[in-house]
Amino acid sequence: MSSSDLIIPGFKAAAVKAGIRGKDRLDMALIYSEKPAAAAGVFTTSQVKAAPVLLDMEHLQDGSAQAILVNSGVANACSGSQGMEFATKTAAMVAQELDLKTTDVQVCSTGVIGEQLELSWFEKGVPALVKGLSEDAFAEVAQAIMTTDTVPKVEKVSFEIDGQEVSILGLAKGAGMIMPNMATMLSFVMTDAAIAPELLQPMLKKAADQSFNVITVDGDTSTNDTVLLLANGVAGHAPIASLESPEALEFQDALNRLTKNLALKIVADGEGATKLITVRVKGAVSQDDAEQISRTIANSPLFKTACYGEDANWGRIFAAAGRAGVEFDQGQVDIFFDDVQMVEKGLGLFANEAAATEVLKQEDFVVTVDLHSGSESCEIYTCDLSHDYVSINGDYRS
Amino acid sequence: MSSSDLIIPGFKAAAVKAGIRGKDRLDMALIYSEKPAAAAGVFTTSQVKAAPVLLDMEHLQDGSAQAILVNSGVANACSGSQGMEFATKTAAMVAQELDLKTTDVQVCSTGVIGEQLELSWFEKGVPALVKGLSEDAFAEVAQAIMTTDTVPKVEKVSFEIDGQEVSILGLAKGAGMIMPNMATMLSFVMTDAAIAPELLQPMLKKAADQSFNVITVDGDTSTNDTVLLLANGVAGHAPIASLESPEALEFQDALNRLTKNLALKIVADGEGATKLITVRVKGAVSQDDAEQISRTIANSPLFKTACYGEDANWGRIFAAAGRAGVEFDQGQVDIFFDDVQMVEKGLGLFANEAAATEVLKQEDFVVTVDLHSGSESCEIYTCDLSHDYVSINGDYRS
Repeated sequence: MSSSDLIIPGFKAAAVKAGIRGKDRLDMALIYSEKPAAAAGVFTTSQVKAAPVLLDMEHLQDGSAQAILVNSGVANACSGSQGMEFATKTAAMVAQELDLKTTDVQVCSTGVIGEQLELSWFEKGVPALVKGLSEDAFAEVAQAIMTTDTVPKVEKVSFEIDGQEVSILGLAKGAGMIMPNMATMLSFVMTDAAIAPELLQPMLKKAADQSFNVITVDGDTSTNDTVLLLANGVAGHAPIASLESPEALEFQDALNRLTKNLALKIVADGEGATKLITVRVKGAVSQDDAEQISRTIANSPLFKTACYGEDANWGRIFAAAGRAGVEFDQGQVDIFFDDVQMVEKGLGLFANEAAATEVLKQEDFVVTVDLHSGSESCEIYTCDLSHDYVSINGDYRS
Repeated sequence: MSSSDLIIPGFKAAAVKAGIRGKDRLDMALIYSEKPAAAAGVFTTSQVKAAPVLLDMEHLQDGSAQAILVNSGVANACSGSQGMEFATKTAAMVAQELDLKTTDVQVCSTGVIGEQLELSWFEKGVPALVKGLSEDAFAEVAQAIMTTDTVPKVEKVSFEIDGQEVSILGLAKGAGMIMPNMATMLSFVMTDAAIAPELLQPMLKKAADQSFNVITVDGDTSTNDTVLLLANGVAGHAPIASLESPEALEFQDALNRLTKNLALKIVADGEGATKLITVRVKGAVSQDDAEQISRTIANSPLFKTACYGEDANWGRIFAAAGRAGVEFDQGQVDIFFDDVQMVEKGLGLFANEAAATEVLKQEDFVVTVDLHSGSESCEIYTCDLSHDYVSINGDYRS
């Protein structure tokens, strides 16, 4: 998408090289809604929450926000009272420059855990960001929030409400420390739709549950995971006031598609990833069972290295399912790679191995485990585990 | 240890090249107790249990055993009714050759999941094994059960009961698919001590809980995990009849040491491992909390790759602790690499980083997380995650 495709009415943005990650990298950005926007957030479930996460949760209690300040390079996590003070100060800087309440500023950080931010970065960066605000800078914001990401991640959808065009624009970052229930990921979603503030949080939760919460790169969860949704109502239609209204359903559907596409982009750009793998468990007695087994397979290093090696090693899928803590009858299990069946009623179909290997050579495939014991199912999206994952994480900091 | 050091009174063994893994590899072995032995077993907790595991659980119900037949190369897991039939048949072959009850024969398999054993391997192998039984062949048995192991794993301890010398000899295999609550591991432990059969199971469980159940290589659990303990009483002392007797405590202590040493050998030989890492969590409110956090850190790919990269990246330890599902105050946490403190009350001590990096350059070190919220602790033993782990598992079958 070109920069001009990423315009979203009533929102402006800017990104600068603030010197956090050397001289030549965009590493600080600002998103600004010209009108006060209804706002919702979904955050890491970790016990160890970064300072900006704690601050944002507080600032979101009034259900509104108007600006998001974000930096990459330093996560401001495990940074104690000093880190909290910095998060608060930087929010106040933005509030002052833009004449907002401090509680209408959200701050986000991503990068190395444990290091402290330096105020000087923000003393120079924030005024430059405010001065540089423009409606076509979202592509640069997507760049500025990248860490080990290899590509920026943006999505936009447009549709009509009451005959009025409405858009949702989403940005995301994340490549490692990615796990169901959020990840080292940030995502900022903006819409010009008019939505009652109290509907926004359940809508975002629903969208996150079928997107960011069903992806995994390495089973690690971060201290900084944050998804923010701002709705500024600039589109001008009658505000959506009920979750059951046709307009709400249409918005939810668009939000679901957008967040799912962003989430898949995160997995496809997983650290060292060469394959995007959908792990589908069906025929389970309960949704929980299906999810538990899908997640166990999707996080199994043995399964993920076999995918990297393009080895149709269904035994590892079976073994991972077996240790998931769910009861099932191994004599009923079927396993497929795309449409190629490798296991029937618990036994290997070795004649199909060559065809299964062809499936694994693709960049994108589906592994299906059918338990034949019920009607519930679940899909988890993951990637393979490669030599590059080890290289990237064996020396991330230097 | 030389072969002659591995003698254990009343036990004989043999290993042969049965052709399962090509012409030139020991891949089938037999352990035999000249007298009926009290026997206990600990098995995989996976829902997907291999045929030999199911058979052994049945055969152990009478608390006695006299022979163990084991093969590497094919796991006889996910092998259906045919696999179960083979396991039963091979046990019967051994029983016939040695004139035992079939239920006194245990069978174990390790190797690729899903493939079927061939009876011809055993029709030739079993008579050769019985014919070759000798008291100094345990080193070869340790070789025959290796799969991705790079070294055979044997341990022996001797001590006195009633002035009578008693020994315990242990063999083990395992390198990948290793996780607390057992692993792709087999271990055979033999003693000439005289122990009432009903005491053997609790003693073995206790020993496994502080050895094989506190190691992890990759968080994957196998379909075939088995630890067997045979006690033939040949030492001649008065049989141990109470778990509280001084003799029982002494035996338990020796068994604990032996199994722990075997378990550490498995971790040190973990697939691609270059470091043996002890993850110690202390100051927890409950034992469960301490264990949950230790295991989460020990299985974190990001922590393990940082150890491989000799990067004192304590933020990843903190982040893994945070997602372990245990409540704690991040402002109280201390983190150490051996004696070098890197985190104090939740904040990084960057001045100590060079010293911490030196600790990480060792082959063997301890990571301590002190929560300062209680008095419970737990240690889990793990290894790093290297390029070689990916190489080994990206192409294990070919």
